[in-house]
Amino acid sequence: MEFEFDLIVIGGGSGGLAAAKEAATLGKKVALCDYVVPTPWGTKWGLGGTCVNVGCIPKKLMHRAASIRQDLNDADDFGWQGKSSESVHAWETLVGRIQGHVKSLNFGYRISLSETGVRYFNSFATFVDKHTIKLVKGAEELQATARNFIVAVGCRPKYPSVEGARELCITSDDLFSMRTPPGRTLVIGGSYVALECAGFLVGLGFDVVVMVRSVLLRGFDRQMVDRIETHMTAYGVKFVKNCTISSIKKSEKLNGIMVEGENKGKKVFSQAFDTVLLAIGRVPITEKLNLEPIGVRLNDETKKITVSPDDRTSVGNIFAIGDVADGVPELTPVAIQAGKFLVRRLYNFKTELVNYNFIPTTVFTPSEYACVGYSEDDAIRELGEGNVEVYHQEFKCLESVLNSSSKFHPKNYAKYITRKFDGKEVVIGAHIIAPNAGEIIQGFALAIKLGATKSDFDSLIGIHPTVAEVFTTLEISKSSGKSAAAAGC
Amino acid sequence: MEFEFDLIVIGGGSGGLAAAKEAATLGKKVALCDYVVPTPWGTKWGLGGTCVNVGCIPKKLMHRAASIRQDLNDADDFGWQGKSSESVHAWETLVGRIQGHVKSLNFGYRISLSETGVRYFNSFATFVDKHTIKLVKGAEELQATARNFIVAVGCRPKYPSVEGARELCITSDDLFSMRTPPGRTLVIGGSYVALECAGFLVGLGFDVVVMVRSVLLRGFDRQMVDRIETHMTAYGVKFVKNCTISSIKKSEKLNGIMVEGENKGKKVFSQAFDTVLLAIGRVPITEKLNLEPIGVRLNDETKKITVSPDDRTSVGNIFAIGDVADGVPELTPVAIQAGKFLVRRLYNFKTELVNYNFIPTTVFTPSEYACVGYSEDDAIRELGEGNVEVYHQEFKCLESVLNSSSKFHPKNYAKYITRKFDGKEVVIGAHIIAPNAGEIIQGFALAIKLGATKSDFDSLIGIHPTVAEVFTTLEISKSSGKSAAAAGC
Repeated sequence: MEFEFDLIVIGGGSGGLAAAKEAATLGKKVALCDYVVPTPWGTKWGLGGTCVNVGCIPKKLMHRAASIRQDLNDADDFGWQGKSSESVHAWETLVGRIQGHVKSLNFGYRISLSETGVRYFNSFATFVDKHTIKLVKGAEELQATARNFIVAVGCRPKYPSVEGARELCITSDDLFSMRTPPGRTLVIGGSYVALECAGFLVGLGFDVVVMVRSVLLRGFDRQMVDRIETHMTAYGVKFVKNCTISSIKKSEKLNGIMVEGENKGKKVFSQAFDTVLLAIGRVPITEKLNLEPIGVRLNDETKKITVSPDDRTSVGNIFAIGDVADGVPELTPVAIQAGKFLVRRLYNFKTELVNYNFIPTTVFTPSEYACVGYSEDDAIRELGEGNVEVYHQEFKCLESVLNSSSKFHPKNYAKYITRKFDGKEVVIGAHIIAPNAGEIIQGFALAIKLGATKSDFDSLIGIHPTVAEVFTTLEISKSSGKSAAAAGC
Repeated sequence: MEFEFDLIVIGGGSGGLAAAKEAATLGKKVALCDYVVPTPWGTKWGLGGTCVNVGCIPKKLMHRAASIRQDLNDADDFGWQGKSSESVHAWETLVGRIQGHVKSLNFGYRISLSETGVRYFNSFATFVDKHTIKLVKGAEELQATARNFIVAVGCRPKYPSVEGARELCITSDDLFSMRTPPGRTLVIGGSYVALECAGFLVGLGFDVVVMVRSVLLRGFDRQMVDRIETHMTAYGVKFVKNCTISSIKKSEKLNGIMVEGENKGKKVFSQAFDTVLLAIGRVPITEKLNLEPIGVRLNDETKKITVSPDDRTSVGNIFAIGDVADGVPELTPVAIQAGKFLVRRLYNFKTELVNYNFIPTTVFTPSEYACVGYSEDDAIRELGEGNVEVYHQEFKCLESVLNSSSKFHPKNYAKYITRKFDGKEVVIGAHIIAPNAGEIIQGFALAIKLGATKSDFDSLIGIHPTVAEVFTTLEISKSSGKSAAAAGC
């Protein structure tokens, strides 16, 4: 059989773009389809997917904007005179500049697709059969065939089944391009998206309440999460726990949106907000792709696409990567690597699979939290308390010693977890809450992947003065019962 | 023979303090002597040595103060309205706060010595014989005996043999406690001390000229140093190369200090300054310790103490650690580790020696530079060009995309160097110029010590968006001849 393309990639996010460009670079005939279904509020965006448009990039820029407030606050203490710490924030300026940057990235991706020879369809793709898709854009409709397909359509924010939610609430899909300041904001959810947004909104000067059904940052190390909650509370975020949204209504009288929340059927919350931001999770947008009729199996519960370790779906010529693939961490760099490695296996005789062990990550809360490997809880549960040790230290950053505002300079904390094994202590997880936590953990993640032991950490010479050097001098074990509270330098 | 102490440590810097406290914690009877000979300008300080008083700590705080200016400059672009970027700097405020912090550290060290049971002598120590020292403070004089001694007296800034230098110039020993702003400053020297001081002085708003005899940052990777010079020049530092100071005079007429410089006997430089900062190197203060008469050998050239790999001098019961020990990297964390490990070998049956391979370090120039392992130059020279590959990338920080001021946001650059060996490429050096460079390199230093290969770096999943993730995606080899110039995100 003859096909128009060797490969069609459905989805123009980080994973899809990486796969399409890699395949084209290897000489394959490639097409990429990308179409953003607008949000209930009408927000849409260009090529690049969640990360670039409504995820990592704009959120890190808003996080940076909020942390500049800390810098302005520090400025006086470091000798900079002026009205700096009394600055007020212009939301419109920030959003305008962020959107300008995002559009330049969208444009860059278009150019790079065309430069590598990838045919781009700004259309919504639906499978007709396992080698054919239908491409729809408005009244325009066409078909295309390919030998192989990669589905990389990602996820979109979830809405609760409460009347009015779709009409009155926004999600992270809308936040970063909002033309007017969000004002009094209710963030619903305990995910990292929820906490990151709550953090930078407070940093930018808004009143923020976070409503959470159960725990914050499910899946992360409990001790670290407790510290994040303490820091964020001191920073100005108000948490309402054990509460789910029960009603949401526009209120002309209160000039805003009236939200009620309940706990076990009992009303426990009632407050008016200007903006309600939903961050209760993300769901794959697989229903409209016509996947199941052509034989591509989905996980019944998550609705994500079931894949084998080599990213293959239940239909042999169709692959899935990124957030839409079931059981895969929802992280941009994972999707990019999956896309590249998959294409190299398909077209360049490589065999390497993505290694999902020891994937580091960072939560960009006001105090950044980065980690890699086991949480303390998981390590104890899986390996048994007797086989696990934790070394830890609370500390102050040198950068914050000239200021006394604990709101902006919480105490930092680092720990690693070891597995006692064969007379050695192998480090199996590392966690830190500190400025630039992500920059610090990235390299240690590689060392831990390579099997670094406590003794390796101890013999590493620190870089002074940095925050990262704390990992070279962790001496207090939890089992010793000694205090790890912050002392002098 | 009976001695008053098991161990006397001479020198209360990072290495000496670490050794004394470790020995006392192990139950030994320990004394520590520390006495700061005032500078020609009369500057002196408390317990803690160079790092705490006139090195790492105050310099990092001044570096932070200068980088806050960048944050103030960014603030407008991130939506913060106000006069922030027009701030002027009050030197006195910064110095006052830094000195306050330093004094609190001095006090903390005194307390911690007393808490661990170390006897403290604030006196100048001189050897009488290999078990006895004379302790002098003003008219007070006493003697003390010990079984073992650790000499950890460090180094002090060097003065050139130009008339007036000691009277008219300051050094880093004086800078951090100067009561008045330095004004127009000439920095003499190309060391990291010179460049760091020049960088933060420009950042704080002063006119700065750096006079260098030959190369900047001798011993560091040439390509990285060239980039630092380019960045610093754009930042506002004026470099005068191939020039040595030939005359320095007070000039009432010019209301400052008149400095002349020469190249091969020819006058090439003549300018008036308010402050002349010498940073032409550091020398050990070994002459007055009476070391050679009791048999402790010094390196004739460096005047540092000759030591074996276990830190022992030519006199069996006398050891030397830190900057005063010949052939040892002059770095605080090295001295601390050397002190701890030595004491554990002496008193706790341990055998571990400090591993001097792959010691990471950071130069806190306005664009921070961090590195570990081989420079490209050394790798090619030692291993041969055919056995070495370099992977590199120029890039912009996400944090700087909203600003266009290249003065404050130079392009960043990362590279690592591999040794082709046994079909693999082992990473033997990593270099980065970027914000928080030190935080980034610390963990990678451990991975490189553990033998990480290019393939290990490639399979590591990045943390997005961070700067550190650049090391997970370095694909452009120098041998390919492809451009590594900064592209889009």
